[in-house]
Amino acid sequence: MTVPNSVDRDFDNVRAMVWTGDTLRLLDQRRLPAVTAFIDCAEVGAVIDAIRDMVVRGAPAIGVTAAYGVVLAARARYRADPVGWREALEADLRALAAARPTAINLSWALDRMRAVATQATGEPLVALETAARQIHEEDVAANRHMGRLGATLIDSGTGVLTHCNTGSLATGGFGTALGVIRSAYAAGRIDHVFADETRPWLQGARLTAWELVQDGIPVSLLADGAGAWLMRQGKVHWVVVGSDRIAANGDVANKIGTYHLAVAARHHGVRFMVVAPTSTVDMAVESGRGIPIETRAASELLEVGGRRVAAQGAGAWNPVFDVTPAALVDAIVTERGVVTQPDRAKMEALMAD
Amino acid sequence: MTVPNSVDRDFDNVRAMVWTGDTLRLLDQRRLPAVTAFIDCAEVGAVIDAIRDMVVRGAPAIGVTAAYGVVLAARARYRADPVGWREALEADLRALAAARPTAINLSWALDRMRAVATQATGEPLVALETAARQIHEEDVAANRHMGRLGATLIDSGTGVLTHCNTGSLATGGFGTALGVIRSAYAAGRIDHVFADETRPWLQGARLTAWELVQDGIPVSLLADGAGAWLMRQGKVHWVVVGSDRIAANGDVANKIGTYHLAVAARHHGVRFMVVAPTSTVDMAVESGRGIPIETRAASELLEVGGRRVAAQGAGAWNPVFDVTPAALVDAIVTERGVVTQPDRAKMEALMAD
Repeated sequence: MTVPNSVDRDFDNVRAMVWTGDTLRLLDQRRLPAVTAFIDCAEVGAVIDAIRDMVVRGAPAIGVTAAYGVVLAARARYRADPVGWREALEADLRALAAARPTAINLSWALDRMRAVATQATGEPLVALETAARQIHEEDVAANRHMGRLGATLIDSGTGVLTHCNTGSLATGGFGTALGVIRSAYAAGRIDHVFADETRPWLQGARLTAWELVQDGIPVSLLADGAGAWLMRQGKVHWVVVGSDRIAANGDVANKIGTYHLAVAARHHGVRFMVVAPTSTVDMAVESGRGIPIETRAASELLEVGGRRVAAQGAGAWNPVFDVTPAALVDAIVTERGVVTQPDRAKMEALMAD
Repeated sequence: MTVPNSVDRDFDNVRAMVWTGDTLRLLDQRRLPAVTAFIDCAEVGAVIDAIRDMVVRGAPAIGVTAAYGVVLAARARYRADPVGWREALEADLRALAAARPTAINLSWALDRMRAVATQATGEPLVALETAARQIHEEDVAANRHMGRLGATLIDSGTGVLTHCNTGSLATGGFGTALGVIRSAYAAGRIDHVFADETRPWLQGARLTAWELVQDGIPVSLLADGAGAWLMRQGKVHWVVVGSDRIAANGDVANKIGTYHLAVAARHHGVRFMVVAPTSTVDMAVESGRGIPIETRAASELLEVGGRRVAAQGAGAWNPVFDVTPAALVDAIVTERGVVTQPDRAKMEALMAD
């Protein structure tokens, strides 16, 4: 197949966050694709709200956003108290860390920023701003590298199924799983992308479809329960997803619905690829059992588009993430390389590099 | 556990269709649970529209509705031409049969009504009305019997997961899979019911939750992709679903998302029960490959609650049903008895009774 000439091969149409040098401008992902609106965060409280309320979501994007949030926090703390600002900053770091529980990239970014704050002598803001920009650009570079690595695993004439949104909106830019899909499509290997709509937040319908349409990559949405039937039709050869945290043994936490795709993929001989930077790997957690799984409000299921759909009196079970055991994962693609059939020894070797 | 005294053990709070003696009154299921509204059908054209537009849905309910539709059609045809009405009626029977393609109960009911029309001497309307009422009441009786049979398969302290709506609204009354759940709950065997919201039409969120709340049976909705993770938590021991058509080899067509539950159930050692009257069994179809699967408009996925959510340019893959192979089915519960580990020989024996 040929790739349309009109495709922007850089796939850099959109950024979830832009540091203006003074404030952090976030694209409000809750309103996409109907409305393109931005929220300007001039202080860390606004950043915390934005992460918790899912103005910005996606593990790598949360990490990058939090890093810029530390710059805003340090600026306020340093202005208020040029001597004791580091101690005061700790409260902000804790509040940022608590905004969402599952994505480890959040605390990874905060640890990196804390180290810069600790080492800073005199006015710390230039060093912190440089560090945040570096976290951001490293994430984009990691995604582009993972895109190339993951694409080599995909044979020509392939259909892929993805879940949630793992693109520019979920990261510093370009995307993790969607980055691999972009790279593989540009290389002529992917014929068609299927995307779960991804209830309850509809990240697939609202965000992934929007990104792919902008790139000129053909995409078909499907109901989240339809993936196994799609595999049975022979329409997909790879499931490609991101992750919010990967345990030391290779277990993968990701958006609810991922695990059932992994089970169905194994049943049908479809391969299962996880794409995530090493900032997503948490070697301090032995296995998926140790990963905290966020549960969100029942209203996300009882209401649709802000309108109540379920009868009063009905409850809901609304875990936001699930854990796919390493045994169901064919490949974890990171910026340091690809781990096939992941286990603890292979993950340790990857992270020791 | 104890069953609340307030539970109506008859579970007969609602009927999807009521024959008034003159018209067919249908509960408009598209508007539930927010609005309880009825559509009165005085002629067959309105019945055809109601089936196609999903005012009424659920395979057994479609069959019962179509039977009453034949009464309306025959009345008009007989009034217009007391001699040639039978030939004219054939056009109505064909139009009714074409309203939805997958549910075999539709053509089963039409065949029964056609036979009555063929045998009628003189004024046929009393005989046809009697036959339609009989189809309706037989369906309710079958459901109550299946409820008792299915409940005996379920051990005490069980959690069950169901999909779509298979209750009073989907049948003549009481329900198929939801009938088993009602019976097992009344017998103290079920602790909790989990219900897939069932995109794109949200029959689980809108209809199943509504029915169960009315019955005082605790219900938790979940996203369609979350079922496998629920099983992994050990929260469910049976998946209980209905069917729109069962092939001669025991393959089961049902609402999209059923097949992935069957795959996940097998993976987790969770058992899988299909509850359907024998009017759902189509011995003329060898296997699931021969069952026509309805595909509905992409807009059902691209829009939510009438509002566009996916970017312009995105497509959708929207099969309404899928097929679960007999090998993944632990039990098919019919009014004639239970078939475990179904295959062609067992289905033939069941239908030969």
